Amino acid sequence: MPDRSPLDVIKTEIRSASAYTLKYLEADVKLDQNENPHEIPSFLKKKVAVRFHELAWNRYPEFVPSSITKALSRHTGWTEDGILVGNGSNELILAILVATAGPGRTVALPQPTFTLYQLLASSMGASIRNVPLAPDLSFDVQGLIEAARVSEVLIVCSPNNPTGSLLSAPDLEVILGAARGLVVVDEAYYEFSRQTVAHLLKKFGNLVVLRTFSKAMALAGLRFGYMMASPELAKEINKVKLPYNVNIFTLTAAEILIDEAYAVEGTIRVLIEERETMRDELSSRPGVEAFPSQANFVLFRTPFPAGDVFEELYEDGVLIRNVSHYPMLDRALRVSIGSVDENQAFLNALDRALEVLNERTDS
Amino acid sequence: MPDRSPLDVIKTEIRSASAYTLKYLEADVKLDQNENPHEIPSFLKKKVAVRFHELAWNRYPEFVPSSITKALSRHTGWTEDGILVGNGSNELILAILVATAGPGRTVALPQPTFTLYQLLASSMGASIRNVPLAPDLSFDVQGLIEAARVSEVLIVCSPNNPTGSLLSAPDLEVILGAARGLVVVDEAYYEFSRQTVAHLLKKFGNLVVLRTFSKAMALAGLRFGYMMASPELAKEINKVKLPYNVNIFTLTAAEILIDEAYAVEGTIRVLIEERETMRDELSSRPGVEAFPSQANFVLFRTPFPAGDVFEELYEDGVLIRNVSHYPMLDRALRVSIGSVDENQAFLNALDRALEVLNERTDS
Repeated sequence: MPDRSPLDVIKTEIRSASAYTLKYLEADVKLDQNENPHEIPSFLKKKVAVRFHELAWNRYPEFVPSSITKALSRHTGWTEDGILVGNGSNELILAILVATAGPGRTVALPQPTFTLYQLLASSMGASIRNVPLAPDLSFDVQGLIEAARVSEVLIVCSPNNPTGSLLSAPDLEVILGAARGLVVVDEAYYEFSRQTVAHLLKKFGNLVVLRTFSKAMALAGLRFGYMMASPELAKEINKVKLPYNVNIFTLTAAEILIDEAYAVEGTIRVLIEERETMRDELSSRPGVEAFPSQANFVLFRTPFPAGDVFEELYEDGVLIRNVSHYPMLDRALRVSIGSVDENQAFLNALDRALEVLNERTDS
Repeated sequence: MPDRSPLDVIKTEIRSASAYTLKYLEADVKLDQNENPHEIPSFLKKKVAVRFHELAWNRYPEFVPSSITKALSRHTGWTEDGILVGNGSNELILAILVATAGPGRTVALPQPTFTLYQLLASSMGASIRNVPLAPDLSFDVQGLIEAARVSEVLIVCSPNNPTGSLLSAPDLEVILGAARGLVVVDEAYYEFSRQTVAHLLKKFGNLVVLRTFSKAMALAGLRFGYMMASPELAKEINKVKLPYNVNIFTLTAAEILIDEAYAVEGTIRVLIEERETMRDELSSRPGVEAFPSQANFVLFRTPFPAGDVFEELYEDGVLIRNVSHYPMLDRALRVSIGSVDENQAFLNALDRALEVLNERTDS
């Protein structure tokens, strides 16, 4: 290969892209990844471990993991042949984009939203059509309708990360009716909104609903997500989903947790209450603006640069997410809802941070 | 969406593709997926389970799983920043193709080989350039050189699935020197050949070496693979690898097994011996042609339609792989090397099958 670099064959859109990355920081109070702060009960972990020890680790998972898709079908009421499981829902997003996105095709995205959608759609060579949220950070339904009319895929995270905004089912219905292609609704946080759009699957063959076990279901470490769509659509997307993509341990754990979902129900209820308390508490601080959220996090803004607030909090051992580099989110940060104690620790640290930053500004 | 079907936005190359699929069949003697028939020792399974129980399942894996890449770096001698881990090596193949393949680009493949390469490369919109194996099923080195000169990526599975053919390091070196793009060597079966091309990574920045824990390492159920390349190349491919792609359980198990790899070493030695015995045994049957193999399976041909041989074996509870639909492999089947007893059960069943089919032909 004289005069050539092996990097020359990497596609331009990838060489110019920044990696999706997250700097690893240790912290006593970790409120940066929207995890459920409560583990599943120990007796369930043991149940998983016992069942797992009996399995043959040297054997591939089943080609079609029918026992888990059956359980999900019971749990959701959706037809088994319209369900695909993934190594996290991220993998299913990638499969959807491999099947539909490419040069000359358009993927529409509300902005700001989860950054991975844009990274993956761009790496497939698709054009991105951004639809900014309204100034109050609610979805611009008219803008989404217009984008859906001319895009192969529209991906809406609802409740939206990192804003917490929810797209209502009636609004989605209008978008689905106008769309020329697929509308993917990522319901990663739906348990915290107590709403789903899954009932629209029967009526709209272009709807794809994504779910994950990483948030409310408290299994972020195990990587499990699933997708619901019409069986015809699922069949096409399945062609580009990697075989044996979910390992036998995760399949075992997810299946047990589906049948024992009551085990996380209590934590979801507390997290929703705590979210409302958090928003009230934040809003009561002078100069702090907290946005309504239907997820397990709250987006807020202070009068100070978000990087400074982040650093002050981190000095107190509290890790949250600086999201001020997202479009429209100048000075904004996102705090995940943790345990009652963690939330209080965050608020205490925030009070100290605001005091320090106020003094710094005054002097 | 009047007059339109949601399937219209699925790319043509995917709608026209057949899914990678494997019909699930129960069998007493399962010799169809090239698994290591011996599980890792029970005390290691327990060690994994104990360490795992202490982990927080509700927390995401580390963004960069540095403890496992450090262990792999110790194990392989390759630099840590040139190592990426995947949910099986399949996931890394997909990431490589997302980064390099697309419309107007060419992926070169020896044929016959592992079918997933072609399925994924086609779904990215790339053109496929097939390089048939020589009539004796060895690699056509001259053909590979010519293909590598004009292709963005050449993927060589060595030892090759389903033929067992090995590409020598000197031959690979010539190909690497001539290639205009990347040369990916999938070493899924390298432990059974006692050879690797990893030492060429230092000299060739366009070489990518893939490994898996699904075969010799006896962890097919856990889904773990890794990739070695120059740090510059790894950095680009990492951009399209999904975040948190390997779950905490698999990371734990893989890390323990790397440090205790002696635990599978004995099984590898036996499997290699049994492979040679298997080839001799097959070759000694009148009308049966068995090909030399450097992997943990043997490809063979009988005078009868492969489907008939497959069915007769399956009636005796022995499951192998009918590969007669691959190019050049008319009447061929692939048998994985199992335990000594399983291999004998297969040979007994084959003798009965050949007898039945001989009689059927005579009558």
